[in-house]
This record gives sequence, C-alpha cells and structure tokens, in this order.
Amino acid sequence: MLRMSTLFVRTLREDPVDAEVASHRLLLRAGYIRRAAPGIYTWLPLGLKVLAKVEAIVREEMDAAGGQEVHFPALLPREPYEVTGRWTEYGPNLFRLTDRKGGDYLLAPTHEEMFTLLVKDLYSSYKDLPLTIYQVQNKYRDEARPRAGLLRGREFIMKDSYSFDIDDEGLERSYQIQREAYIRIFERLGLEYVIVQAQSGAMGGSKSEEFLSPTEVGEDTYVRSPGGYTANVEAVTTPAPPALDIADAPAAHVEDTPDTPTIATLVDLANARHPRPDREWTAADTLKNVVLALTSPAGERSLLVVGVPGDREADMTRLEAALAPAVVEPANDADFAAHPHLVKGYIGPGVLGPQARAAGVKRGDDSDTAIPYLVDPRIVEGTRWVTGADAEGRHVFELTMGRDFVADGTVEGAEVRAGDEAPDGSGPLELARGVEIGHIFQLGRKYAEALDLKVLDVNGKQVTVTMGSYGIGVTRAVAVLAEHHHDELGLAWPIHVAPYHVHVMATGKDDAVFAAAEELASGLEAAGVEVLYDDRPKVSPGVKFKDSELLGAPYILVVGRGLESGTVEFKNRATGDSAEIPVAEAVTAVATAVRESLGG
Amino acid sequence: MLRMSTLFVRTLREDPVDAEVASHRLLLRAGYIRRAAPGIYTWLPLGLKVLAKVEAIVREEMDAAGGQEVHFPALLPREPYEVTGRWTEYGPNLFRLTDRKGGDYLLAPTHEEMFTLLVKDLYSSYKDLPLTIYQVQNKYRDEARPRAGLLRGREFIMKDSYSFDIDDEGLERSYQIQREAYIRIFERLGLEYVIVQAQSGAMGGSKSEEFLSPTEVGEDTYVRSPGGYTANVEAVTTPAPPALDIADAPAAHVEDTPDTPTIATLVDLANARHPRPDREWTAADTLKNVVLALTSPAGERSLLVVGVPGDREADMTRLEAALAPAVVEPANDADFAAHPHLVKGYIGPGVLGPQARAAGVKRGDDSDTAIPYLVDPRIVEGTRWVTGADAEGRHVFELTMGRDFVADGTVEGAEVRAGDEAPDGSGPLELARGVEIGHIFQLGRKYAEALDLKVLDVNGKQVTVTMGSYGIGVTRAVAVLAEHHHDELGLAWPIHVAPYHVHVMATGKDDAVFAAAEELASGLEAAGVEVLYDDRPKVSPGVKFKDSELLGAPYILVVGRGLESGTVEFKNRATGDSAEIPVAEAVTAVATAVRESLGG
Repeated sequence: MLRMSTLFVRTLREDPVDAEVASHRLLLRAGYIRRAAPGIYTWLPLGLKVLAKVEAIVREEMDAAGGQEVHFPALLPREPYEVTGRWTEYGPNLFRLTDRKGGDYLLAPTHEEMFTLLVKDLYSSYKDLPLTIYQVQNKYRDEARPRAGLLRGREFIMKDSYSFDIDDEGLERSYQIQREAYIRIFERLGLEYVIVQAQSGAMGGSKSEEFLSPTEVGEDTYVRSPGGYTANVEAVTTPAPPALDIADAPAAHVEDTPDTPTIATLVDLANARHPRPDREWTAADTLKNVVLALTSPAGERSLLVVGVPGDREADMTRLEAALAPAVVEPANDADFAAHPHLVKGYIGPGVLGPQARAAGVKRGDDSDTAIPYLVDPRIVEGTRWVTGADAEGRHVFELTMGRDFVADGTVEGAEVRAGDEAPDGSGPLELARGVEIGHIFQLGRKYAEALDLKVLDVNGKQVTVTMGSYGIGVTRAVAVLAEHHHDELGLAWPIHVAPYHVHVMATGKDDAVFAAAEELASGLEAAGVEVLYDDRPKVSPGVKFKDSELLGAPYILVVGRGLESGTVEFKNRATGDSAEIPVAEAVTAVATAVRESLGG
Repeated sequence: MLRMSTLFVRTLREDPVDAEVASHRLLLRAGYIRRAAPGIYTWLPLGLKVLAKVEAIVREEMDAAGGQEVHFPALLPREPYEVTGRWTEYGPNLFRLTDRKGGDYLLAPTHEEMFTLLVKDLYSSYKDLPLTIYQVQNKYRDEARPRAGLLRGREFIMKDSYSFDIDDEGLERSYQIQREAYIRIFERLGLEYVIVQAQSGAMGGSKSEEFLSPTEVGEDTYVRSPGGYTANVEAVTTPAPPALDIADAPAAHVEDTPDTPTIATLVDLANARHPRPDREWTAADTLKNVVLALTSPAGERSLLVVGVPGDREADMTRLEAALAPAVVEPANDADFAAHPHLVKGYIGPGVLGPQARAAGVKRGDDSDTAIPYLVDPRIVEGTRWVTGADAEGRHVFELTMGRDFVADGTVEGAEVRAGDEAPDGSGPLELARGVEIGHIFQLGRKYAEALDLKVLDVNGKQVTVTMGSYGIGVTRAVAVLAEHHHDELGLAWPIHVAPYHVHVMATGKDDAVFAAAEELASGLEAAGVEVLYDDRPKVSPGVKFKDSELLGAPYILVVGRGLESGTVEFKNRATGDSAEIPVAEAVTAVATAVRESLGG
C-alpha cells in the first residue's frame, strides 16, 4: 500500500511556467516527472508505475505476437552507422561523443544497424526465419526544439521491434502481425489512435504507416476522407491531372506587370489589363516559384526552386519530408544576392532547371550550373501558367508546360487543404492533428544490403534478408495518455495504466475515521486492489480532495463524516459519479468495481 | 514455452578468443550476450531473462526495505557535477559530450548529485525524513581497461539507492536497513559474498563497506582474520607501533655502500661491513623511498615520495585508493632527470619533505619547493633506519625518525601480506580475491552541503541532510553468478535466476518421442514451470545434450529411448544426479522438484 505520508511526491498548486501542454503541466504538478535538462526527464515513483504498466502491456503483446526480447546498448560505436550513412545523415540530431581512446561513439536514436548485425552474427539459413526481435530501451535524439515534456524529448524510451524474412510475402506477413499487435496495445492502453499512411523519412524503405493519437497539441497533421483514406499530410500524394493538348495552347506572351510582387496583386492586374476571354484569372492560373535552401546532413547548402500553383502555399513540412534528410528553409537575402538572375517576385522557369541548363544560364556566382527545378504534380504537360518573366515588373502569360518549359521532376511540396480530393478518390479530405505513438515500416533490404545480411535459401543460394521496423514511443505514450485523460482538476488515468486503482482518503481529525480508512485500505489491498491511502493526519480535507483529483486514480474512496451513519463515499474520477455506500460493503463493492474495470 | 527451434540463440562450440574468464566465455558461447563494443554488451533473450530475474529480486528487497523506485536520465547536464567537483575529478573515466547548442553533458557514472537535487526540490522538513529512494539504471564509465565481459564494462546496469536523514543516528539506521537488504538480495541470488571494510574513493564520505564475491578472477583483494576482521586491502589500516625513546638511538652515520641499489644488496653489505652488535640487519631495518608521479583529474602531474619499510613493496592499488582521485604511477626517467637531487637507489629523507624545505632544498628544475614526503604508519618517532644518503653508493645508518627527519604525514601505501596482524588485533590476516558486487556508503553531508540540501528541523532551524549511497552491480551480478555456477560443460544456474527451470529434450527421430516430449513440456508449463523445449527435429542427441549443459537450466528432462519402457531421464544440472522416472509421473515429479527448489 502506498501511503501519502511517506510517498515520495509533492503536488504543486500552480502551473509550472514553462509547461505549455496539459499533459506536461499535470505530470509535473502531480509529481510524476521532473525535468533534469531540456527534453530530459526524471521519473518519480508514481510516474514510474504508469510507465511500468505501459511497458508491461507492450511486452505482453510483443511476446504474444511471437517477438523475442533482446536489449542493445545505448552507447554504440560509429562504424555500423557509418556503413549505412546514418552517422552523417542524422546531422545534428545525433548525440556524438569520443571515448578516452579517441573512438567515435553515438547515443543511438534507433537500432536498425545493430539488429541487422546481430541477426547476421547468429543466423545463416532461411530455416531460421521469420524472426521478430524487439527491445524496450532508451533512445537519444538531440532535438532542435524539445517540447511539451515527454511528447518530444531528447532521452526517451522506445519499444522497437524488427522483423527478418526471406521474401516480400514474409515481410508483409510479419508487418501485419506487428500491425495487429499495435492495435491491441493501443486498445489495451486506452489510447485513441488512427492509422495513417506515412513517409519513411530517414529510415528508408518502401511502405510505412503511423499510429497517430488525435490531439490538438500534436505536431503531426493528418488527413482522412469519408471513404476511409488516411495519411500523414507528409505522405499525401497529389494525383496528376490528365495532360492537355499543347496544340490548343496560345502562344506565350510577356507583359509588363508593374508592382505585382504577390500573387494577389498579379491576379488583380492580369484581370484589369490582360483579361481572359472565357473567365477571370485566378491564383490557380499562376505558377509560384519558391526558392529553397537545402542543408545536407554534412552541412552543405544548396538552392532548389519548387513551382506550385499560386493558390497554394509551399508546405515546409511536406517539403522537408519529401527532401529528407536535407533541412529545408526559405532562401535568405544572401542567397538572392548571390544569384542576381533570381528576380524576387518575378522568378520564372526560364532561369531554372533543364531550360536554364540548355541555355547555358549560369548562377550569379558563375560557379555552378543552373538551379534544379521541381514542380507540383498538378503542373502537367499542356497546362498554361502566368508566371515570372525573370525581370522586375514582368510576367509571362500562357507559359505552357512541355512546350515552353520543363522541370527536373515533381515534388510533393504544396499544402494539402481541407476539401482536397483524396488521392484514391474516396472523397474530400479533412485535416486534423495528432501525436505519433507508433510507426511501422517495411524497410525492405536497405539495411540488410548495406550490412550484408544474407542467408541461404532453400536452394542453397545466398539471398539478402528483408526487414521491417516497428516503433512505439513508450514514454510519449504516457504523455498522450495524460493528454487524453484529464480535466481541469487533474489527471484521470484509465485503470490499466493507473499508478494505483483506488485512492482511499481519511478526512477530518477523528481517530475513528483514520482507523476505518486504514482498515478499508488494508482490506482492499488484501483483495488484490492497488491502493494509495492518504493517511496524513494534519492535512485538510480540501487539500486531500485536490490531491486525489490531481493524482488521478480511477476510483476515490472518502472516509469521513458519513462514517457515523455507516457510509463512505465512492467516486469515479473520470465520470464524477459518486455514491454513498455502506462501510461494511465497501471493500467488496470497490474491489468488484476495480475487477470489472480491469476485465473490461 | 521457449522452443529451441525458434529461440533466438546460437551456441558456440569453440571458446571465443578474447574471453579470458569463464563467465565471459560461457555467456558468449551459450548465446546470452554479445559484444557491441569494448566493455559494451548486447543482451540476447536468455541473458535478458536472467537479468530480469536478478533485477526483480533486487527491486523486491529494495521495496521491502522501504525504498521507493525512481528513474533518472543517463544523459545529464554538467552543472550539478561541476558544483561537486566530480565533472573534473572523474577525469578520463567520464563520458562527456556536447549537445547541438554547445551545452556540456555527461553519461552519468553514478547519480548522487541528481538524487540530492531531487530531494531538495521536493522536500523541506524533518517530517519528510527518513527517505530512501532507488533506481535500476544504466551507468557509464569510460574504463581504461574494460575486461572480463560483464565484470568490468563501460555501459552497465546498477541499482543505486540513496538514503536521506536528519542526523547521524538516522543515517546509521538507514545504512543498516540497506545492509540487511543487501544480505537478503545476495542470499536470494545464490551469490556467495563477504562484507569487508572499504575505502570510499571518489564518493567521499566517512564509512563504507563492500560486498565482495570471492573468486580468483576478481580485481579486488581483501583480507580476513580468524577473529572476523574483513577489509578490502585498500582499506586495511596499519596500527602505528609505540614511539621509541629518541635518547636511546645512536648517532646517525653515513657509510660507503657501493653497488647497493636494491634492498637485498644493501642488507648484505650492511651485515658484511657494518654489522649490528645485537642481530643481523634485515630488510625491515631499511627505509625505501619510492618516487611516485601523481596525475590529478585535471591532468596536472606532480611528484610525491613515499617511505616504506624495505621489507615491503609499495602497493600501487593501496596508494591509488589513499591518494584518490589522483592517478598514481612510478616516476619515470624524465622525472628523475628533472630532479637530479633524487639519486635513484640512494634517496633519503634529507632531500624530501619538511627537512628539505627547512634546508631550502630546491628541486632540480629550481622551480618548486621540495617534494612532499609521506611515510608508512610503522615509521614512528624513535624508529631507526638504514636509508639513502642522497649520494651514489652512500647510505645513512641509524637515521632516527623525529630526531634526524620527519615526514609530511603518513599514508597507507605498503603492501599487506598474509600473516600480518589484523588492525583490530583479531589475528593474522589471510588474503583472497573477489569481485565487488555491492558497495554501501555513509556519505554524510558532502553532497548535501555542496548542493545545499537543507530541511527545517523540529525547532524550525535549517539543517543539512545526511546521506547514504548504496550500489549493486546488476549486470556484474549476472557475470558473477555465471562465474560461481558453471563447470567445464557450461553454465549451471541457481533456479531463482535461471532463464527457465527445465530443459525438456526430445532425442532420436521417433515421432512418438517428440509427441511425448511436447506433452510433457506443455504439462510442465501448465503446472507453472518455465520450460525450454528442444524440439529440433534433425539435431543429434549429442548436440542437444551439449546445448542443454552449456545453456545451464537447473533441471534437464530427456525424452528418448527409455520411452518404450515408459521412463524418461530427469537430471540435476549442478549435481549431475540423474534418475529414470516413469513418464506418467514426470510432470508431477519435475514440478515438485522445481517448486521445492524455488521454495528453498
């Protein structure tokens, strides 16, 4: 039995100043965690109990799905990550260090390399496969902006599992088994989730899905359609419209368009001075060329121009996902100064990509070939655009893709908007925000090839193994649980992850009250119920009530004034329901309620 | 049930080349661990099961002793360790790193600072105390010589607990409670141990004891006496003999002693040319002055001379413990070249310590005052010595402590020998080797003072809290268990830490054998027994036997030829006892044996 008089906890009445989201605020106020450094947290006894329950559920389902638990170090040598390129690719997100002998080490952000090498060490035949192994382990990422407490930390616990198969069908099977296990885990945890298509990012690989928990404080935006399409906004693809007949396109013509540095001013001027015969010009008729500066993980900076229809913003998150592992930002004044042929506000395809290279256009510094040019998938052959003519106050009209210009390729860089058609035709998209709580990948052979993980197949031939990688943010899940299960008074844990089931409280100063409360708490404990007993003798009922609400046990049992008439108060923290029950029946009633909740 | 056909393990027939101790060799061969980097290991499924059982026993006893579990990060900011000086004191043993913003971080070797700050954050009154909190957590030390697998690693798991008390009596009580818990833990683990007095080393503090597990492969030497005195050799104190009357001492006289660079040659020459009237000279009459180079954690190098009776070697381990946190090594040729007044082989007190300073003796480089001089506690006032006269081929006789020379202090730097009298008079010492598996400290107020941890006492006055610190090497305990519980065939785990209780083996090719073995394995599992079933169809009985012996389950159940006559073979791995038992009674018999072992 936990006793409030000795439990290592202190609750805070005031919100901590630097905690902007509810879960962070409440986990700090209720004494579940403390900050040790930015994005690095200490777990106090109550927090650790929640964490242990979450971990136990994750382990049970991993084991039930045939996973075998292993445990890798957090401190790893550089070599395997050098082979796969991730030593560099992770850029400043990787904590790197040097040992006393000058050896390079890292604090692992994820363990694909090590799992691959371990299987290579132990296994050698198709008969050994399929194999799924996992760990629950500390991960490290030197986030640029650690935020929201446990939601985005720099030291955090992940469950990561990895599957190893001889062929693609095997990988698909292993992937589905993990996917089902994830569904069971999140359901047992009481965590709302949606499964969305995802970008693979720095992991590589062919197919991946995220488990997002919907919440306004989430960093991820995702979309869903009435027909069931769901995707992280980073992964939404834009279907290319059918190409148009170039023969139908009028000739391009350059016009004076003074003082039109923005799309809105350009559209107004076009309608005023160069009206279309059939309808008004709109922003969607314009082609906006956005100059980006990419920084590679090795720190090399280069420019890229992305063309998007003028009625849409370039979406930096989508661009960064598409252009990973580069860091993407808008070009700055120095970039423009170094490239005087980029006329800000009037940039056109003429100085970009293939046509610029064909024409021998050099960049301003004359040190490089033309800037690469990628366009939104909507910009297909035969489409006609109003866009910059590469001179101050000049635009070109009817510039036709495939006739007047081409690009180096397409990129998913335009914003996705509510109402956009789902790529699979399943209806208009709506947007929502969520936190990534799980991510499952079909890695394929990327790591096995890099690290030469082969086994003998049934014909005695060496074949490369195909892999899946499956992660759950365990410490993050605790924060998301708190985010979903709280009210203005405090936390309200689902019973399967609560640090204890029942908060028994003695109110008043009467010894009989304390004796009765103690007896009830002991009786409940004997019945297998996890109890916190607030036994503090000199603390007011008001403070005890506030603490019980803040700490968030699913059930609260108040022993106080009612005792004279033989009753105690039994409350449900989440619903607020409350009932006076006979003290003689209290242990049975509470234990039954707890058992039913746990069974449900 | 674990099945050998799918268990993620591969046994090795050959000893790994770089594994010099049995535990390391067998844990690798049996597929319990794999090396990821020097001193850094990966845990495979069987190893992790043993580790989890050890951790569970540690946690149960910590909880039973009133400890509350918390969990600190491994990655910590520099500041608290700067305040206590340990950022520097740890020297090259600390893994240090810098984050993307240039902040200094470390991988914590131990968490005194963080625990102190956490209690300061939460607690403020004597009423909150006593408190004992603990964690089971990854620690990091950049060992100069990681060795012997898990015995001395660079990433390893420790249980560390910390007690907080208002006064010394409280600390003593908390210390004894932890001490008792440690005894229970090691007994439950089946780990032989001795409790010895210890040096506190870099921890600071007043009193400490180590739990050493006796083994030849241990790095620690300890002593014990028939009367019950036990101590790490580093902590053995030398009682000072009574002072002698200086008036009795003959005058000192310098003699030619050509070609006597060693104690043995000196004693021979003294007996030949300058015989004592009462008895022969012995090495114990000579005073050997050993020149040491100390390197401080900040990297500063300085010389120190230690005087020990000539019949004993200077013990570098004891000296390093006494002079912590400095690193100690013998002075090198460059040191002697820089100090020409140190005549190698003929160094006497005249050029050292107080008398050198009084005489204005400068060091060779003329840049410093005289070299400090510490002596063995046996060198008390009135004792007379044959020692160097600071000139090649010259020694001084009857040099009398307190009349002819003094030292800057005493130091425990002479070797301890079997047969030495215990400092408490409890008889002659014997020496043995062991591995440190636990260390308990009365830290006192060192950390609380440095980090200003105070609480209000009963009179409303701020008082500094006093602390204890208590560690168990959890991963190391696994290695020590393997070290103590193996034979030439493999591991032989005590049942409480075994990865599984029974190894069921189907031998032969007969389907009936496999069916019977499967049924027995299932029956045992249903009876609550942890089973590994070797179900591999095409593996020879010889290989299966060898694997079962190597893997080390406490019990082995062989299903094979005896089946025709209705029996199976039931073996005890550790004792080698074996019995044919009726197959119909096997589940009951084995389950009973397992239950009895677990209960015992």
